[in-house]
Amino acid sequence: MKNLTINCDMGEAFGIYHLGDDAAVMPYVTHANIACGFHASDPNVMWRTVRAAKEHGVKVGSHPGLPDREGFGRREMKLSRSDTAALVLYQTGALKAFLDAEGMQMSHIKPHGALMGMAMKYAPVAEGIADAATALKLPVIACTDSEMTRVFDQRGVEYACEFYADLDYDDDARQIITMIHEAVAPEDAVSRVMRALREKTAVSINGKSVPVAIDSICVHSDTPGALPLAKAVFEAVSNRL
Amino acid sequence: MKNLTINCDMGEAFGIYHLGDDAAVMPYVTHANIACGFHASDPNVMWRTVRAAKEHGVKVGSHPGLPDREGFGRREMKLSRSDTAALVLYQTGALKAFLDAEGMQMSHIKPHGALMGMAMKYAPVAEGIADAATALKLPVIACTDSEMTRVFDQRGVEYACEFYADLDYDDDARQIITMIHEAVAPEDAVSRVMRALREKTAVSINGKSVPVAIDSICVHSDTPGALPLAKAVFEAVSNRL
Amino acid sequence: MKNLTINCDMGEAFGIYHLGDDAAVMPYVTHANIACGFHASDPNVMWRTVRAAKEHGVKVGSHPGLPDREGFGRREMKLSRSDTAALVLYQTGALKAFLDAEGMQMSHIKPHGALMGMAMKYAPVAEGIADAATALKLPVIACTDSEMTRVFDQRGVEYACEFYADLDYDDDARQIITMIHEAVAPEDAVSRVMRALREKTAVSINGKSVPVAIDSICVHSDTPGALPLAKAVFEAVSNRL
Amino acid sequence: MKNLTINCDMGEAFGIYHLGDDAAVMPYVTHANIACGFHASDPNVMWRTVRAAKEHGVKVGSHPGLPDREGFGRREMKLSRSDTAALVLYQTGALKAFLDAEGMQMSHIKPHGALMGMAMKYAPVAEGIADAATALKLPVIACTDSEMTRVFDQRGVEYACEFYADLDYDDDARQIITMIHEAVAPEDAVSRVMRALREKTAVSINGKSVPVAIDSICVHSDTPGALPLAKAVFEAVSNRL
Repeated sequence: MKNLTINCDMGEAFGIYHLGDDAAVMPYVTHANIACGFHASDPNVMWRTVRAAKEHGVKVGSHPGLPDREGFGRREMKLSRSDTAALVLYQTGALKAFLDAEGMQMSHIKPHGALMGMAMKYAPVAEGIADAATALKLPVIACTDSEMTRVFDQRGVEYACEFYADLDYDDDARQIITMIHEAVAPEDAVSRVMRALREKTAVSINGKSVPVAIDSICVHSDTPGALPLAKAVFEAVSNRL
Repeated sequence: MKNLTINCDMGEAFGIYHLGDDAAVMPYVTHANIACGFHASDPNVMWRTVRAAKEHGVKVGSHPGLPDREGFGRREMKLSRSDTAALVLYQTGALKAFLDAEGMQMSHIKPHGALMGMAMKYAPVAEGIADAATALKLPVIACTDSEMTRVFDQRGVEYACEFYADLDYDDDARQIITMIHEAVAPEDAVSRVMRALREKTAVSINGKSVPVAIDSICVHSDTPGALPLAKAVFEAVSNRL
Repeated sequence: MKNLTINCDMGEAFGIYHLGDDAAVMPYVTHANIACGFHASDPNVMWRTVRAAKEHGVKVGSHPGLPDREGFGRREMKLSRSDTAALVLYQTGALKAFLDAEGMQMSHIKPHGALMGMAMKYAPVAEGIADAATALKLPVIACTDSEMTRVFDQRGVEYACEFYADLDYDDDARQIITMIHEAVAPEDAVSRVMRALREKTAVSINGKSVPVAIDSICVHSDTPGALPLAKAVFEAVSNRL
Repeated sequence: MKNLTINCDMGEAFGIYHLGDDAAVMPYVTHANIACGFHASDPNVMWRTVRAAKEHGVKVGSHPGLPDREGFGRREMKLSRSDTAALVLYQTGALKAFLDAEGMQMSHIKPHGALMGMAMKYAPVAEGIADAATALKLPVIACTDSEMTRVFDQRGVEYACEFYADLDYDDDARQIITMIHEAVAPEDAVSRVMRALREKTAVSINGKSVPVAIDSICVHSDTPGALPLAKAVFEAVSNRL
């Protein structure tokens, strides 16, 4: 994961329910983080999404979340290190079976929602993710300057830091995770990304310039207007991918 | 899976709840079928059970079940071929992550409860299991003379037929699956097994002699008196394992 | 439930997921069957839907389903009489708490999807529903000429038979339940309803005239084009409601 | 709830899994808090437990927990006030259906595990419980000198404070909730209870005397040695019940 990449959370539909338009967004990303059945998705959705990624030549990583479908993995819950390691292993393995069935490789792990948020703050959660990543020999998509990156640096876990094209940042340079994502204009997303690439900074919701890292750009497929946003970001950076 | 083996369903605890005494039974089996979180088990239980199997040198296969924890996977539910393939892939992959973490290989797939029962009767379910087994290149523990074995023979899916040391058989040579297993005396289990090995027959609940196959002997760890039963069966056949 | 009524399955969203446009359809129905958290819905969705019904003066009944969110309660699963009674009681009671909180009365019970389908065919399921309805002293929305109505007649359970404005019928006069509903033109729905009211018949998918009952008209809110269909049906029969 | 009472969490089995010996403990309690299907229990278990309470003339309250069966409701998760109110209403209503079926009244609400713990610390959770209790006009079993009792006092929600015969207290007079309860000798439980009744104090794990309230004595049925403990406590205080 040396070059700039664009990653997108996908396969977050469930049973009869739709979420996001994965097929439409696929052409504009390099890596799909596929939900694994805890916060969203189910075996049928996972397989379908793996096939769509294969068709578009998109790399696939696991997107493990908290066991809280009702809260879409966006409500923090107390987890021990071993709880965390076990649930990341379980979900990543489950997804890997569909990659095996399609002759594809697992590319990475990217924690979802509150699991990512907790890994940024709580050492045992970060350690648990490191345990799973080490056991499976996979890199992790992480957030810079956090408990996560501190633990990963210490233990030699490979990671790439992501920048959110479609989320706001607070004054501590932390992405703001809401239950429902707000729409962002494609041109605003592009200018955020270009600034991050150029200066390694973002403008917080209070107008402060805050430091960010940007090894990978994250776009969401369930944000309203996700498709034009993803297309605009992809076109703006395609020469660097 | 050429030699006679003894397999046991394990890892069927869940959260705070216990079920069976896996650790005690481990010395008397060659293969553990570990539940994968749908009808029973959870990531912590799976990992713990994989470690126990490793300690005892027991081979591990997946024991995928229906997504019905409340019914312990023992209530039939209508599944299509692709539903079936997807849920077997998902569960087997999930378990495989813990084997990867412990440096172990996945040995086989054995469907649980009503999933096994449905695969014996319904071609789409048998085909779905064959799809998953083929994709993952794994043999299946099956029940002889069923839709399952017909489909597996036709498609070249490797399988071993199991004989139940602790379940009754009906006049059609089918094991009788109940929500709660009844106790069986160790000496009765042994004489059933020896008869099956000698004559390839069992005595049905109505006293009829019915044909059985016995590539593998199944013992359950949640049957009352499971431990002495497993020990007695193991000792009776240990020279053939 | 003496007069003609229009009932609609509602509150089938879940967590972050949407389904149907309940608020828009409310003005065109007399009774809302609100999902109760097993096949769809969750406590927040239920409360929100009860409030919407209150606002529109729509009566509320429970819409209990199978414990199978992934299959949206549309995959049959084997249930005993007591399993059935217990899950109908549980779900109806859960919904009743929100009606209590809003000062409303529970109007009726209408089984969802495969639970309705199973009650039409299997006596133990029909008996289980009757047990719950009797215990809670509630009428049931049922399907005519089925195991359900036979059991209800025998036991004196009050019921109203529904006619589906937006589902096809087979040659045995049974509605055809699919995982995803197909769109129906509003004028076709209206002419089906008017024919059912006039002649107590429907035209099956093979062109056969089959007998139907129509104490209540069912419209679905998740069918594509649900809103104009509901409006058209409502306007066509509003003088009889 | 004016007199001293003995309450016990019950109905915490699930599907095939056992937990505690409710039937044995019933003779020694006045109030059963029955789990409602979120952290434990299921519709069949709830009905069975309601019937057992009826047989022993034990009053029944709801024991709502977090939607986390795997963690037995003992892992904190972030809930808003409306999330909390909705899940308490849902679970209490679900249980009430079984009481209706048996001609019994709902006596009270007692939050389970981490939901109780969170209500003691976080105002929105305490407010959500108060919302549900007010809507259903039910008293709550609470923990003294907490966010809970502050909110309940302010809003006029009726409550009784419980003292734990079988849990340790920390130096802040808070019960210590562990995933698995430890055994306590019956005579120790009795002497804790008698001290609490006499002096309104407990001895913390560090030997400090801390203030407690004791309107109701809580005993657990899943603690090892629960039965002799419950019996001893019951006999020691039976003249005050």
